[in-house]
Amino acid sequence: MDGNQTGSVEEDFVLLGVGDGVATVTINRPSNFNALSSAMIDALQAALDGIAAHRDIRVVVLAASGRAFCAGHDLRELRAHDDEQWHRALFERCSRMMTTIQALPQPVIAKVQGVATAAGCQLVASCDMAVASVDARFATSGINLGLFCSTPAVAISRALPAKQAAEMLFTGAFIDARRAVEIGLINRAVTTSELDHAVSEIAAQVASQSTAAIVSGKRLLRALNQMREATLTLGAAYALAGANMARDMQSVDAKQGIDAFLKKTPRGEWQDR
Amino acid sequence: MDGNQTGSVEEDFVLLGVGDGVATVTINRPSNFNALSSAMIDALQAALDGIAAHRDIRVVVLAASGRAFCAGHDLRELRAHDDEQWHRALFERCSRMMTTIQALPQPVIAKVQGVATAAGCQLVASCDMAVASVDARFATSGINLGLFCSTPAVAISRALPAKQAAEMLFTGAFIDARRAVEIGLINRAVTTSELDHAVSEIAAQVASQSTAAIVSGKRLLRALNQMREATLTLGAAYALAGANMARDMQSVDAKQGIDAFLKKTPRGEWQDR
Amino acid sequence: MDGNQTGSVEEDFVLLGVGDGVATVTINRPSNFNALSSAMIDALQAALDGIAAHRDIRVVVLAASGRAFCAGHDLRELRAHDDEQWHRALFERCSRMMTTIQALPQPVIAKVQGVATAAGCQLVASCDMAVASVDARFATSGINLGLFCSTPAVAISRALPAKQAAEMLFTGAFIDARRAVEIGLINRAVTTSELDHAVSEIAAQVASQSTAAIVSGKRLLRALNQMREATLTLGAAYALAGANMARDMQSVDAKQGIDAFLKKTPRGEWQDR
Repeated sequence: MDGNQTGSVEEDFVLLGVGDGVATVTINRPSNFNALSSAMIDALQAALDGIAAHRDIRVVVLAASGRAFCAGHDLRELRAHDDEQWHRALFERCSRMMTTIQALPQPVIAKVQGVATAAGCQLVASCDMAVASVDARFATSGINLGLFCSTPAVAISRALPAKQAAEMLFTGAFIDARRAVEIGLINRAVTTSELDHAVSEIAAQVASQSTAAIVSGKRLLRALNQMREATLTLGAAYALAGANMARDMQSVDAKQGIDAFLKKTPRGEWQDR
Repeated sequence: MDGNQTGSVEEDFVLLGVGDGVATVTINRPSNFNALSSAMIDALQAALDGIAAHRDIRVVVLAASGRAFCAGHDLRELRAHDDEQWHRALFERCSRMMTTIQALPQPVIAKVQGVATAAGCQLVASCDMAVASVDARFATSGINLGLFCSTPAVAISRALPAKQAAEMLFTGAFIDARRAVEIGLINRAVTTSELDHAVSEIAAQVASQSTAAIVSGKRLLRALNQMREATLTLGAAYALAGANMARDMQSVDAKQGIDAFLKKTPRGEWQDR
Repeated sequence: MDGNQTGSVEEDFVLLGVGDGVATVTINRPSNFNALSSAMIDALQAALDGIAAHRDIRVVVLAASGRAFCAGHDLRELRAHDDEQWHRALFERCSRMMTTIQALPQPVIAKVQGVATAAGCQLVASCDMAVASVDARFATSGINLGLFCSTPAVAISRALPAKQAAEMLFTGAFIDARRAVEIGLINRAVTTSELDHAVSEIAAQVASQSTAAIVSGKRLLRALNQMREATLTLGAAYALAGANMARDMQSVDAKQGIDAFLKKTPRGEWQDR
């Protein structure tokens, strides 16, 4: 793929509109459910890289053409390459693109209609905010195909509470937009006819703010996330808590409280006051 | 306690049923509200260790006999040992059992009726997923006895948002199943008569998946959790997950599952069983 | 400010009531929407430090006089000091006060009516628990004035799921008390007439417990939080955010935005475009 072809292909795969401080990046392969083929990943990477350099863009909307948001990786392409190295390189490229969303100076809002599955669901989880139509549906459905959604799991396990992430990842089942709001995968679900307006409104609200304040905020939130991820295992936490609890078991109050419970008698005043 | 006695005691304390890829581990001391006595902890540890070695088990249901799920530690036994070393050793064993749930190759679903208190609530929080009947109630009630639920706090503070964890731990008050869904402690609350069916359905759904995919996923989620608690950045997490997914793409099941999807044909039996 | 004046000023800025194991700290500048001026921060720090030493206090209620809970920093004072060093020192003092809430031996319950904005919303997020009246409203509204809420972002991003934190921080929009319950910012929303009773009830419930158990629990939860943050403590996060915010205070946009707010005049175009 040479430079000219790349340019042309990227315009085709991804539509880019900019106005009033808002860049709208539209994934544009509706006939293929906007699958993340290698060409699509490259086109999205190029679009995001372009946006990063533009100070007049204060917020990004990540949208999709057609009835689906994004059906994840292009399975046909994946299967056309029977080669672990090729697959690894593809997932690296895709992960780089997903990480770029967090590294952008601007907040990114996913605008979701139809299905967002596997890496498509990961895309939603990777954005800073997300608004969906009520008929949108979300799944990390790889496991239904015998392939656990490993890379989506990175974004999903950071966006959702542990049990809700596990349910999505192990069952592969769809959740609807209302449930997606409840578990924190998206910010809002609106009627299909309201989707354009709702996303425009939130984008305009962010775009009306000071560029300096937005860029400072996005950079800080990323730094705080990175800081939070720095040598403690579950075993070490339990060692601390177990020692704590064993020591606490020696207190007069604990002994009295437990004894009263066992004997079904009222306990006396706590001693340790 | 010699080998023969252990075997006999464990069968008694814990019932184990295996079928269709689902292992059901039933805590079986209803007369004692299924308390986690040292014998019960050992029986659960043995049951889990046995399951870990069985590749034909793809999902585990952790259930309980009688009206209560689990009332936590066996307070009578705790009080019979006025000895910090003994208590510390007990909590270490219990924490090892709880950690084993996360270390298992299979996802574990808690099936909860009645009360789940203190270490019983910790058990629920430690499972990958949980389904409860609407009449189930949850509390980290140790503080009511003068003993802060330190080891449960490890699991609770990882499963719940900070304020909701603090409320449970400091008040010791019960929450009902609907509230438990809202704060992320469990995945679903269903009517009492639907509990068996709801759990069977989700277990069957997971059990219908590729063993390779399930085992890969469980291992990855655990590694991601450990990473989040170490010097690990989002980029490094994606590097691991991408390599994992590329390797998984080479499995017979992944190939077959994807091909069947593409050809819209029914897939055959998973091979990796 | 000598010792006598300090005593007098502190009594004025903050009211302290103690009874039945409950300390109630009331932020008492209703005419100024209880803004966190440097004098108010010092008064709160002194009140919290005093409580830390009292073993007969088992729980703290953080309340506010008048119609608002707390409107954040005192913008007039911030703008009276056109000096990054002064701003940084102020944010350090404020962060120390916020961190003291977590370092106290006792759990702290925020009692919220009216608005809790910017550092006022951070106060709510920094408490162990929070109960609000249904008419309470929450916002990290600094961005509306050209100043991203950097130090509030530390507490907000630990209390809320990522997407909900991002929405509050980037839009600056208000959320109501019911939404605050849904996203985990507060524990409960009750009718205005029930607020006193609801807070008293939860405070009394905690205060009825063993001091030893409460103190042990608070210390453990803090240690578990610190463990999860490994190389990064709350203090380090605040150091980063405070420096960020002090730097941002020097921006033309922040100065203009705050001045327009204070003078109730429309602000001009953001300069930094």
